[in-house]
Amino acid sequence: MTAKRVAIIGAGPSGMAQMRAFQSAHQNGEEIPEIVCFEKQSNWGGLWNYTWRTGLDAHGEPVHCSMYRYLWSNGPKEGLEFADYSFEEHFGKQIASYPPRAVLFDYIVGRVEKAGIRDWIRFNSPIRWVRYNEAEENFTITVHDQIKDTTYEEDFDYVICASGHFSTPNVPEYDGFESFNGRILHAHDFRDAREFEGKDILVVGASYSAEDIGSQCWKYGAKSVTSSYRTAPMGFEWPDNWDEVPALERVDEKTAYFKDGTSRDVDAIILCTGYKHFFNYLPDDLRLKTANRLASSDLYKGVVFVKNTKMFYIGMQDQWFTFNMFDAQAWWVRDAIMGKLQVPTDMKTLTDDVKERMEREEASDDVKYAIQYQGDYIKELIAETDYPSFDVDGACAAFFAWKQHKMDDIMAFRDNSYRSVITNTMAPVHHTPWKDALDDSLEVYLQN
Amino acid sequence: MTAKRVAIIGAGPSGMAQMRAFQSAHQNGEEIPEIVCFEKQSNWGGLWNYTWRTGLDAHGEPVHCSMYRYLWSNGPKEGLEFADYSFEEHFGKQIASYPPRAVLFDYIVGRVEKAGIRDWIRFNSPIRWVRYNEAEENFTITVHDQIKDTTYEEDFDYVICASGHFSTPNVPEYDGFESFNGRILHAHDFRDAREFEGKDILVVGASYSAEDIGSQCWKYGAKSVTSSYRTAPMGFEWPDNWDEVPALERVDEKTAYFKDGTSRDVDAIILCTGYKHFFNYLPDDLRLKTANRLASSDLYKGVVFVKNTKMFYIGMQDQWFTFNMFDAQAWWVRDAIMGKLQVPTDMKTLTDDVKERMEREEASDDVKYAIQYQGDYIKELIAETDYPSFDVDGACAAFFAWKQHKMDDIMAFRDNSYRSVITNTMAPVHHTPWKDALDDSLEVYLQN
Repeated sequence: MTAKRVAIIGAGPSGMAQMRAFQSAHQNGEEIPEIVCFEKQSNWGGLWNYTWRTGLDAHGEPVHCSMYRYLWSNGPKEGLEFADYSFEEHFGKQIASYPPRAVLFDYIVGRVEKAGIRDWIRFNSPIRWVRYNEAEENFTITVHDQIKDTTYEEDFDYVICASGHFSTPNVPEYDGFESFNGRILHAHDFRDAREFEGKDILVVGASYSAEDIGSQCWKYGAKSVTSSYRTAPMGFEWPDNWDEVPALERVDEKTAYFKDGTSRDVDAIILCTGYKHFFNYLPDDLRLKTANRLASSDLYKGVVFVKNTKMFYIGMQDQWFTFNMFDAQAWWVRDAIMGKLQVPTDMKTLTDDVKERMEREEASDDVKYAIQYQGDYIKELIAETDYPSFDVDGACAAFFAWKQHKMDDIMAFRDNSYRSVITNTMAPVHHTPWKDALDDSLEVYLQN
Repeated sequence: MTAKRVAIIGAGPSGMAQMRAFQSAHQNGEEIPEIVCFEKQSNWGGLWNYTWRTGLDAHGEPVHCSMYRYLWSNGPKEGLEFADYSFEEHFGKQIASYPPRAVLFDYIVGRVEKAGIRDWIRFNSPIRWVRYNEAEENFTITVHDQIKDTTYEEDFDYVICASGHFSTPNVPEYDGFESFNGRILHAHDFRDAREFEGKDILVVGASYSAEDIGSQCWKYGAKSVTSSYRTAPMGFEWPDNWDEVPALERVDEKTAYFKDGTSRDVDAIILCTGYKHFFNYLPDDLRLKTANRLASSDLYKGVVFVKNTKMFYIGMQDQWFTFNMFDAQAWWVRDAIMGKLQVPTDMKTLTDDVKERMEREEASDDVKYAIQYQGDYIKELIAETDYPSFDVDGACAAFFAWKQHKMDDIMAFRDNSYRSVITNTMAPVHHTPWKDALDDSLEVYLQN
């Protein structure tokens, strides 16, 4: 019998976790399936692979990256540390708690470089289509090799979708957008805050992108920041030149008009209005449709697609935990594919699991409840595999502290530090307050 | 025997021409195949369907539109007029020679509205994949219905690709782009010139986009325009605050450096670096690969794909003529599908035709030669169908005059007018010089 073949779609944090999971089993002497990872970009790292490009990339594909220059982690690294590869192992020392993008990219890439799995990946290889063959009980994947500019098909026994859900912007339209004279962009296309130096900007939205992109613009010299919310203000103590206002209703050439009857002239409008789960390479019978929430629709254990249990999804939930949650999922999926864990075969058991997770998520609106909910999910998964156990409740505690630090001072919360639950060491306080740290290169950040 | 089924991909100018061609035959009492046109956008008009959106659209698909506010035709309308539907028929009078986008959109839509073919189109329907079935000698098309958010397959006897080739930007990278502090955008994402009022802008490129976007920015108050060329300057008499400089070599935070050793500080960089033929829904055996030129690769008579003669392409050439050339092609393709014209069956005849066209195109670098070459191509096609004959050489003459008017005054060439070769009437001179006509709405433009 030939080895089973597993396709992983995407070499970002989720796909890298999945490859590391299989490599870890291989390292322990287990026989693993053949793994092929298809990556659209020319490098790994997913969203963390920064590009100045926006819109379409060099090959005409949608740009995957939604990150911007000067982005720092907006949550403490103590909440996302790998249990099998600590920050101290990677950097040779403990580092401050809110690393800039380049530092986190270096960290997540360090683990997979150590694992030696880069040659499992076919770069520059967007997936065009996936179909499930009922008769053969396998999948046919159509791939575009951008380097040869040719398309080909290949068969696999399992497919793991790890292509992310923060790359396809949700872009609402407001009356007057077609006549506004300044730039209108979604957060996905935001790159360098200095473009908005001296400008009056409007940030539409009240979630993490709005908070962080507004803060970036403020830090790099925007004249004023106006942020508009639909349901409730973010509620932080903003600097004097930042106002939170009710929902945007319409704009004209230069002016934005809000639900409370106020208006103001703005130079640019940044839509921080979220992202969509988007899979243009999947037919209905394989395609996940879900809101961005902690309990995804149609995923047993948060990872197995209930309509076809040979199809898996990693990282499709909204996230407090990130890299370590992808690990918990990836180890679980690995063991399901390798037959070490049993996926139920009857639909009712599968859908009951999904239903229970959704109801439990919906039982409370409290943020601490949500963080603990996701922590408990990670505990559930890692208890069933050999992923190194770690103090998930301790990581939750770091998130709780972070939430309070943001309420204390939204422009200074990144100046705090936390204790690693992996190495039990305290992070140093960063050498420069975030608001003054204009050079956030890896070299400068690591000077502690 | 059931009716043949024809799929048209795209309801822009080329797809609209193709539908009008079939409807014209139907109107003459001929039996026509069943036509289904798949359109990604929610309206017809292709590039001419303006949107403020850039990057990805409301459904997550690449935005098709490459047009901008304040765009006026950059060639005389007398070179693109439909032979079967004159400007006078549409507007009830003759109009000035360089209509803004909204006026041309109104004109091209007017013809197909009169033809009553809108219900042939399935809007919000991007094609995911097309495959040719050797056994059945037909095509299976996989479509995404964005409204129902569902995918489906349907079979067709012929496929006509009319999805355009000015929507997928060719975006080169220059050293330092990742550290430049201002906006970097491709012409594809350029929308409102007022965004660059008071700014120093760099336009990279020396072809039509560079010329026209630079001119827009100049007209709407850019502080300065610098345009960089690789091979030769555009060579017009530019205004005092516009400089043409040699090729861009690199940038840093604020400064652009050129091949001649000069440099200048710029606020934004607009890449007018062309477009790619891009068909992410076509496998190798159906996919056109060609440069943007007058004689396309692999297209017999410029329309029949030599590797599969049931597959056609409309409008894939670089263009002097536009709408009327699409008509000439569409009528020819219609007659080939309806069996009124014979497409050769042997590969050598097909490829010899392509080769002859390429060699003839390459015989001269002269612009007038190129214009006449494309005029002759149109004459060749329309001589073989019932498309209304018109004075193609007269249209060529309008293009020759236009070229001279641009050399005379690049910021005033649109103030000239020309004689229609369809109605033989002279266009009025527009009521306001282009450089002063800041309101270019349809209502204002038609006030003559």
